[in-house]
Amino acid sequence: MNKFVLAPAFTGTSEPLCALKLCDARLQADARWPWIVLIPRKTGALELEHLSPVDRRQLMDEVVAAGAGVRAIGAALGRPVEKLNVGQLGNVTPQLHLHVVGRRPDDAAWPGPVWGQGIAQPYTAPLLRAALQAAGVALAGFTTGS
Amino acid sequence: MNKFVLAPAFTGTSEPLCALKLCDARLQADARWPWIVLIPRKTGALELEHLSPVDRRQLMDEVVAAGAGVRAIGAALGRPVEKLNVGQLGNVTPQLHLHVVGRRPDDAAWPGPVWGQGIAQPYTAPLLRAALQAAGVALAGFTTGS
Repeated sequence: MNKFVLAPAFTGTSEPLCALKLCDARLQADARWPWIVLIPRKTGALELEHLSPVDRRQLMDEVVAAGAGVRAIGAALGRPVEKLNVGQLGNVTPQLHLHVVGRRPDDAAWPGPVWGQGIAQPYTAPLLRAALQAAGVALAGFTTGS
Repeated sequence: MNKFVLAPAFTGTSEPLCALKLCDARLQADARWPWIVLIPRKTGALELEHLSPVDRRQLMDEVVAAGAGVRAIGAALGRPVEKLNVGQLGNVTPQLHLHVVGRRPDDAAWPGPVWGQGIAQPYTAPLLRAALQAAGVALAGFTTGS
């Protein structure tokens, strides 16, 4: 199999978080929402149906782990998550990826979806560190150890 | 466990399609997109993390099956699906449910998400029959048989 290469769109919009067994987990660089992007390291995969059944099960486990990660980010930043949103779209960036987003009724797009809403709000350096730290701790049990 | 009761919001916006092993599958009553809603028959479940690992795996299988269903609807209606979108939001209707939507670059919201976009366009009776028939055939192998 070809070596997996992350699509450049992700490096411009998110920060590396950790490598889970199947996916690269990244923090979306948008302080409006605690938001983790999962990208399965499978060259050529564009849809869930392109993953093997075993990989799809792993992906589901990693979505739930990412949910714990965004809850941890929200708690660390003083805005506890009240609802999780999960999306697999890929209409703009086709490389298969899933969004796991923490929502609150007072957030910038509630109750609508977050995708395509307004302009990303950059994290300040201290808040970025806090978010990465909180998510890293929450996801530590799911990483590859590499 | 209490008997599962479908939230009334679904009966007003979608048509019954079939009972899969875990989920009720329903056709979203919006002719703009081939769109199947999956509602796990688990009382009190609001998030993926509320399902057991076994049920989450089954849900992933049913999401992939629903993808085949929306592709079948698109093909039957002369608008083949070019991209699948999957979403689990629940910001308005909290009962756990997943959307599986067939997208095309010429559709009414491309490349944005479909949720909260404009007003649902009712199916005509013949197109509704064609959509239900196509999805039913595609999902036949996944139903409970009940």
